[in-house]
Amino acid sequence: MSQIELGYTADYHVHLRQGDMMNAVTPTIREGGISVAYVMPNLTPPITNLEAVLKYKEELQKLAPKTTFLMTFYLSRLLTPELVERAAESGAIRGIKCYPAGVTTNSSAGVDPNNFTEFYPIFEVMQKHGLVLNIHGEKPSVDNNNDEESITVLNAEPKFLPALFKIHNDFPKLKLVLEHCSTRKAIDAIYEINANLKEGETPIVCGSITAHHLFLTVDDWAGNPVNFCKPVAKLPEDRKALIEAATSGKPYFFFGSDSAPHDIAKKSTHIKVSAGVYTQPYVLTYVAEVFDKVGKLANLRGFVSTFGNSFYGIDESKLVCKDKCFLVKKPVQIPEVSVYGNIRVVAFQPGGKFSWRPEWH
Amino acid sequence: MSQIELGYTADYHVHLRQGDMMNAVTPTIREGGISVAYVMPNLTPPITNLEAVLKYKEELQKLAPKTTFLMTFYLSRLLTPELVERAAESGAIRGIKCYPAGVTTNSSAGVDPNNFTEFYPIFEVMQKHGLVLNIHGEKPSVDNNNDEESITVLNAEPKFLPALFKIHNDFPKLKLVLEHCSTRKAIDAIYEINANLKEGETPIVCGSITAHHLFLTVDDWAGNPVNFCKPVAKLPEDRKALIEAATSGKPYFFFGSDSAPHDIAKKSTHIKVSAGVYTQPYVLTYVAEVFDKVGKLANLRGFVSTFGNSFYGIDESKLVCKDKCFLVKKPVQIPEVSVYGNIRVVAFQPGGKFSWRPEWH
Repeated sequence: MSQIELGYTADYHVHLRQGDMMNAVTPTIREGGISVAYVMPNLTPPITNLEAVLKYKEELQKLAPKTTFLMTFYLSRLLTPELVERAAESGAIRGIKCYPAGVTTNSSAGVDPNNFTEFYPIFEVMQKHGLVLNIHGEKPSVDNNNDEESITVLNAEPKFLPALFKIHNDFPKLKLVLEHCSTRKAIDAIYEINANLKEGETPIVCGSITAHHLFLTVDDWAGNPVNFCKPVAKLPEDRKALIEAATSGKPYFFFGSDSAPHDIAKKSTHIKVSAGVYTQPYVLTYVAEVFDKVGKLANLRGFVSTFGNSFYGIDESKLVCKDKCFLVKKPVQIPEVSVYGNIRVVAFQPGGKFSWRPEWH
Repeated sequence: MSQIELGYTADYHVHLRQGDMMNAVTPTIREGGISVAYVMPNLTPPITNLEAVLKYKEELQKLAPKTTFLMTFYLSRLLTPELVERAAESGAIRGIKCYPAGVTTNSSAGVDPNNFTEFYPIFEVMQKHGLVLNIHGEKPSVDNNNDEESITVLNAEPKFLPALFKIHNDFPKLKLVLEHCSTRKAIDAIYEINANLKEGETPIVCGSITAHHLFLTVDDWAGNPVNFCKPVAKLPEDRKALIEAATSGKPYFFFGSDSAPHDIAKKSTHIKVSAGVYTQPYVLTYVAEVFDKVGKLANLRGFVSTFGNSFYGIDESKLVCKDKCFLVKKPVQIPEVSVYGNIRVVAFQPGGKFSWRPEWH
């Protein structure tokens, strides 16, 4: 098999930033083999109103005319149910991203993950209109000098899972995505929620999985800021669970790269390294490598294309470009540094050699 | 209590490097409040012969005339039982440092921790002469795609402990130090070995504990290369066990800073950050802060002075300087960067404020 049709590929979690960085990375979505990009709202300031989201989308569309952009709001007290209703009805947004305060890049305006109830009026509107709630599922770290009561970067995701179950329980028809699953416990939670899903049914609660979490464990980011991201990569058993889930052919696991570019200067500092792995220009290359290795290339299309598109209710007739993505067996070498004008970013696995690349027909 | 006599303070694990870095950090031993420094041999090339160790000691002594230096060999196939015997009899070394190959800075010449038996003839000589075997107790990482068989930076130390027990079992009178204990399991192992130690007896197997491991958990080095070291800091429960052990007043836990200076450039890189935390100029300040916080300043002298000196059999009449160290309650502010000529190093807790400093009388 040297060419595989993937159809309308989608990346349901991208960070495209602002200014020079936005100009640099937005065109790489298509280079990476992605047709539909679901855009994160953690800008400065966060995207919390219609004007901002429409303006941002317009800027992105100019930079990447063949990419279909799906936009999001940033869940915060600046949102009102009325605003969310208006945004949903106008089609300006497809979902709302929820960041627990303080867990990652530009999350300081986020929510208290112990108190989602203040947003229940918004969740009500979202459920009504089929908007998706995208959840960064980590509790902020707490150091209580013992493991039982402390939260570290290693258990922040498992500690969050009860909150996921509670939201699902309180809003059983609200579409939820647990973003960038990084632990076996998170994968197990998604399986548990979907235990009674019937063949052909569209799930209500999904887990998205990045490219880099299919490769990394704790050893890879210890001493390598280029691999430091939130949630951090965990243990070999966790990575194994992620690979099994991604390649399982289950419709409740789909691709969201969480590609998060930072200038190399923010990755090359002795304190306060920015969290995030930049994968955008090579996302399909990375993911295909993993699927190929475990002999599951036949399940790749579901993961990077049909499952997410089905969950988000993509109307193919509305895609801005009808080119289809094909995976072809051709060598790819990741550069040591990607240079875009005055921006320098290190893509995941600098210097690495891979075997598959996307083409458009 | 605003002044505490600590006597002949000792740091039983220091990295003093070579060249400009050596010139920069060697004088800071005394500034940090330490009289006796036990010097690591992981230079380039490693110290494995008499000429090298004598020359190194001479260089250090010139840089710090009031510091007593105890020297070590680097355990490797370059050593012979005859050489070790000669070195022991001449007093050139007090111990031999064992690095599992590949686990930390300049450890590539180290040993296979699954096969210590090839060094048993050397251990025999060490036991006979009362030399100390200083063990970096980590297994090298192995990624077997599951947690049971894999070794990561998080479990590398617990995975090593059976090897410690085996060496102790095979050489019950060989003095061993499990260096820079970083887990509750390591602490428990030292307690277990010393379970039958009688009051007043000198232990055969000890654990050394650094200053920085009394402060850090995994969250502190995630995204902060300045705090990245080997073994990595673990969980709150582990740190709690280290603080309890250090402040316990048990003679088998004593201080070894593992102060490991790297130029800031080696800490400010997006890949391959050098492992090591630089604490030398403020070691007593850091340690005293922890003891004070848990109300155990009365046990500080044992930890930083008498326990280690007793284990290593220090003859006080042979110290190059008889000044005694006193801890006084005076504010200390750690600089953001320590500049020594063309060398720039970031000391632990840059910008931090502390309450105790050493004085010499």
